Amino acid sequence: MKRKNNELKSKVIKFNLETGISPEIESKKRMLSDMEGMYFDNNKLKEIVKRRDLIVYEFYDLGIKADPSELAYGTTIVYPGKVGAEYFMTKGHFHEKIETAEIYYCLRGYGYLLMENPEGDVEVREMKPGISVYVPPRFAHRSINISPDQPLILFFSFRADAGHDYKTIEKKGFRKLMIEQNDKPTLIDNPKWKS
Amino acid sequence: MKRKNNELKSKVIKFNLETGISPEIESKKRMLSDMEGMYFDNNKLKEIVKRRDLIVYEFYDLGIKADPSELAYGTTIVYPGKVGAEYFMTKGHFHEKIETAEIYYCLRGYGYLLMENPEGDVEVREMKPGISVYVPPRFAHRSINISPDQPLILFFSFRADAGHDYKTIEKKGFRKLMIEQNDKPTLIDNPKWKS
Repeated sequence: MKRKNNELKSKVIKFNLETGISPEIESKKRMLSDMEGMYFDNNKLKEIVKRRDLIVYEFYDLGIKADPSELAYGTTIVYPGKVGAEYFMTKGHFHEKIETAEIYYCLRGYGYLLMENPEGDVEVREMKPGISVYVPPRFAHRSINISPDQPLILFFSFRADAGHDYKTIEKKGFRKLMIEQNDKPTLIDNPKWKS
Repeated sequence: MKRKNNELKSKVIKFNLETGISPEIESKKRMLSDMEGMYFDNNKLKEIVKRRDLIVYEFYDLGIKADPSELAYGTTIVYPGKVGAEYFMTKGHFHEKIETAEIYYCLRGYGYLLMENPEGDVEVREMKPGISVYVPPRFAHRSINISPDQPLILFFSFRADAGHDYKTIEKKGFRKLMIEQNDKPTLIDNPKWKS
């Protein structure tokens, strides 16, 4: 395959280690209003949004060419907060090329990576500074921030042609939810989950 | 392709953000004596090793299955030091599957990533905390620590089937060297480079 010359240049991008933010690149932002239907208590979500819409998370999409030789990478920043008892989290998604893995490395904060595959296997892994979590092929993944006051900051990398399938999770949800119960993060069955 | 069940598990590994070290996994260590012939002043190297062999760098190889769907990842830690005027550095290598990219994210320290492809294009990028450098397909890469007292700590990720070709660099060297001249890191032509 013939490549254009400018595709063969190295790339330098800063992601601040304290904030996760790149000063050069515009992030993609997910507001609470973008998360309609993702939380167990959707009325609570609407109530909060009515008062004031909040940013739940932001992440970087560098537009790396969707080629199996290349890698997508960047940071995800999940802000602290809750919708009722449910922690702020990312929408979560499968890869369109479902066989491709992903790596997360936690730079700051406290939370969980929730994973599940179409076969129904669920994995949940604690995130804290210095912890890497390898998301194996076939697993949808969602990042959850359990800290009351700190952002959860993750550096990620995956094959640039992996693609994102958000729709499956938007329709079915994850099999499990992470909620606060007796002041502790607790994994429960998702009563709204659709098989 | 059929996978074994234990390959479908997520993986949690800590890499300390301050030291780069994983408390769970044995790193691969490169001593100065392993670097015979890699520095411009090989007599200086022998002289140092005779007094006391030193660790130049260490890195993690997690033994992820060499599959294009999977990702290798971990940290590289290059210690501060010099051989004559030449900074401590990694051997550097091409990927065996030369079309595969790599991503580096600098957690601590100061240095450079030196890159070159078989066509003779050279790229050199400064590394400091929070800087990510994308190594494009076809580029050999070497990490260089220019700090007098701090380790250079990099988190890396690449396709798990990329493989390492160390031999080409061991035989030919890089086209450029990074040396200290008038107290400043300076890129010079490698007088020993073999075409």
